[in-house]
Amino acid sequence: MLTRIDHIGIACFDLDATVEFYRATYGFEVFHSEVNEEQGVREAMLKINETSDGGASYLQLLEPTREDSAVGKWLAKNGEGVHHIAFGTADVDADAADIREKGVRVLYDEPRRGSMGSRITFLHPKDCHGVLTELVTSAAVESPEH
Amino acid sequence: MLTRIDHIGIACFDLDATVEFYRATYGFEVFHSEVNEEQGVREAMLKINETSDGGASYLQLLEPTREDSAVGKWLAKNGEGVHHIAFGTADVDADAADIREKGVRVLYDEPRRGSMGSRITFLHPKDCHGVLTELVTSAAVESPEH
Repeated sequence: MLTRIDHIGIACFDLDATVEFYRATYGFEVFHSEVNEEQGVREAMLKINETSDGGASYLQLLEPTREDSAVGKWLAKNGEGVHHIAFGTADVDADAADIREKGVRVLYDEPRRGSMGSRITFLHPKDCHGVLTELVTSAAVESPEH
Repeated sequence: MLTRIDHIGIACFDLDATVEFYRATYGFEVFHSEVNEEQGVREAMLKINETSDGGASYLQLLEPTREDSAVGKWLAKNGEGVHHIAFGTADVDADAADIREKGVRVLYDEPRRGSMGSRITFLHPKDCHGVLTELVTSAAVESPEH
């Protein structure tokens, strides 16, 4: 069951400049940053609020580390802007299986590693009214044993 | 001060079909629906979670009521997808004034009426790294006297 807006993924050309924009304009600070080589992105997570399911909502700022990454290709086509939205769940495997059974294309056979040790998968935007949609199970909040 | 992700605004061609997609796929239900003639949209708010500032996070599904509305023109150009993101604040007037002073273009001189009696304004996407950004003060949560 999807229980929160986990994050909004925003693609940018220059992560440092975009982080500084969000800090200077709104006072949002970087909660976590990392490079995800598999996804081909350098990213910063800005925590905006906590959520009623025990998790939190973030902005995820994404700069591609290579032009042929999914985010790199998307940026070249669209320019900066909202790249995807993500819903949090306690069980990404079960939700992905359930959603696949409803005929929505799930992009990974098995969830992969996302921000902060989370497990993630994506749904095809053409099956979701144009919205690239991610499902996330957080490591920290929902799987404390990890 | 911006204290939550208030909503993600998603533009669609057929509100009823999109509401049904979110219900059937994820189990999200319509919390509120209305027509905003000033904005030229018919909309449905799907409540996803409550937030640590006493508010909530929603998906806002938007169908234009006329082709020459902002959302209608955006849809004709971009197709369905994420149209804007919105941050919640207890004082949209103060935040808009503060942000305007920093050189970010605020689209309205005075906040206008948004969903569920809220007061809203927008920031120019070209000043926000490509993201059309809304600021919202909710009527129900933060201004109980209204």
